[in-house]
Amino acid sequence: MTSNTLNEIEIIKSSTSKIDSVDFQNLTFGNVFTDHMLVCDYKNGQWEKPVIKPYAPFLMEPSAKVFHYGQAIFEGMKAYKDKNDDIWLFRPDQNFERFNKSATRMAMPEVPEFVFMEGLKQLINLEKDWVQKGLGNSLYLRPFMIATGPGVIAAPSQQYRFMIILSPAKSYYSGEVKVIIAEHFSRAANGGIGAAKAAGNYSAQFYPTKLANEKGFQQIIWTDDATHTKLEEAGTMNVFFRINDTLYTAPTSERILDGVTRKSVIDIAKRDNLNIEVRSVLVDELVEAAKNGSLKEIFGAGTAAVISPISGFSYKEEYFELPKLENSFAMHIKQTLTNIQNKLAEDTFGWTVKI
Amino acid sequence: MTSNTLNEIEIIKSSTSKIDSVDFQNLTFGNVFTDHMLVCDYKNGQWEKPVIKPYAPFLMEPSAKVFHYGQAIFEGMKAYKDKNDDIWLFRPDQNFERFNKSATRMAMPEVPEFVFMEGLKQLINLEKDWVQKGLGNSLYLRPFMIATGPGVIAAPSQQYRFMIILSPAKSYYSGEVKVIIAEHFSRAANGGIGAAKAAGNYSAQFYPTKLANEKGFQQIIWTDDATHTKLEEAGTMNVFFRINDTLYTAPTSERILDGVTRKSVIDIAKRDNLNIEVRSVLVDELVEAAKNGSLKEIFGAGTAAVISPISGFSYKEEYFELPKLENSFAMHIKQTLTNIQNKLAEDTFGWTVKI
Repeated sequence: MTSNTLNEIEIIKSSTSKIDSVDFQNLTFGNVFTDHMLVCDYKNGQWEKPVIKPYAPFLMEPSAKVFHYGQAIFEGMKAYKDKNDDIWLFRPDQNFERFNKSATRMAMPEVPEFVFMEGLKQLINLEKDWVQKGLGNSLYLRPFMIATGPGVIAAPSQQYRFMIILSPAKSYYSGEVKVIIAEHFSRAANGGIGAAKAAGNYSAQFYPTKLANEKGFQQIIWTDDATHTKLEEAGTMNVFFRINDTLYTAPTSERILDGVTRKSVIDIAKRDNLNIEVRSVLVDELVEAAKNGSLKEIFGAGTAAVISPISGFSYKEEYFELPKLENSFAMHIKQTLTNIQNKLAEDTFGWTVKI
Repeated sequence: MTSNTLNEIEIIKSSTSKIDSVDFQNLTFGNVFTDHMLVCDYKNGQWEKPVIKPYAPFLMEPSAKVFHYGQAIFEGMKAYKDKNDDIWLFRPDQNFERFNKSATRMAMPEVPEFVFMEGLKQLINLEKDWVQKGLGNSLYLRPFMIATGPGVIAAPSQQYRFMIILSPAKSYYSGEVKVIIAEHFSRAANGGIGAAKAAGNYSAQFYPTKLANEKGFQQIIWTDDATHTKLEEAGTMNVFFRINDTLYTAPTSERILDGVTRKSVIDIAKRDNLNIEVRSVLVDELVEAAKNGSLKEIFGAGTAAVISPISGFSYKEEYFELPKLENSFAMHIKQTLTNIQNKLAEDTFGWTVKI
């Protein structure tokens, strides 16, 4: 079956469901998966017929390229159920587009729109009982692609597997988030893969983050690797800084992910007449603003946590506590965004897509 | 079984061998594997008993961290058979040490020496018929570790699998190698994972290398990502430049792999009274040397190809052909090194280890 005749998804239903054993009130993020998954293999230069089948482990070759060369990409998305039991996606076109940009950067084949979009829709439809109603509840969607072809020679795989797995999620509250500004470690190189949702970008952060954790900080604010003077991302999220009444975030680049939440924050800020400037914020500028009291807020923006307020930051062994604001930009934006996502407020942007 | 009581390897022999179906004269690198593999799992904070068993695909969780976050490392080594049918490893201590350095950088557990070293020895012993005699023949050894623990949250896995797979190899001749000097893309960031043999470093190179291939070049010479002025590595190898009668190679750093072949080349050069300097070579310096005729050789150094002479390079759309020398440093070093590896010359360094 060639990719231009891909117009059907085979569905093999699970004979049982584990949904009754799931405690939806006490979910930890990304650990419980629904009853089915979508699998679509790429072989001989073509995508095969996608199949939705029971969620289960699958066989991999010991020499599969993903194990040896990390050729793998993913997306993070969410589905929400409104009070009428309709299910909505948030800007799925943006994730689809970015997925294929990541694929290109990692020398992987682009995934056909039918497989990604129709795959998501049919899989979610089958699992609609797993999407819980109520603000804070969602179904986390994880499309990903791995290099399944064999061979321990560092060259692109000839075989790939695209998959979608689904995980029910509660509102993501990570507690107080204190961050440390990176003075030595980095997440991305100029001319590297930092703008792609490539698997290897994430494990590269584990060790520096572990060191930060040991010092009592939950996350790292990444700086540019050449000079460590420009503030770029916070952990696995984009990052915003509010100095006086202006919100700043770095422009996207080869080092910075073009986050869907990031661009939605910018659009909401503009619509709601908050001052927003897309430009690099320097570490010195942040420290100066913290010292003179003009630094009001720092927050991360990403699909999992939506908006994650940061309570303080450390730089060169000095800790700067941020003020606790009653009417923070972070809270306004988070509420606005989650209301749109949950169909509790009018979606003036046309971001939500009904399944 | 805790790691400090790890003193035994279980062996489950394959009832058949595929060795008779292998054409040892026409092997392509890294595509044929021997009959057995070593598997050792890490769970609950401990390494379990290593098992040597028939080479076969194995089951993986769809949410395994290696698929989503690229938490994976590897080593490349070779075993050689001498004329007395003894089998030798080349500096395996160096690979073991580097493997655990990579593990630390990727927030993975260190592998016990017994599992790595004794695992290699027992596995190779079982597969000794797969190690072919004669200069150019070897058994390529691929120890690797992948994050097998489940969960789509970007944090280190709680479960890992260490494996060793073996692939018979012929002398690696890649034909004429013309390279392009990177002006835009990079392989590593300051404060990144370039010095680790982390899976993600390799797939990051696939796309830039594909673009180079399309222009008629086989490999890329990587430059520092901040300025693109310093020459750092060639493809997946370390790189050496000979200007007049001095050999240069970049010092190891966070961006440059501490290659075993690289350090062996340096030691051979010193012993054999070749001038060698470990310092960064600038792109401008290379272009100038090519123009005034003082640039004599460029070669890559790595386990797979040992020494890979480069016939010319392109920079800013200009191509510089290298002279064809009768008595090149590359050939002297390659011959010296392969003679030591194959026990055809005295190993004054004590690099070879009998199995």
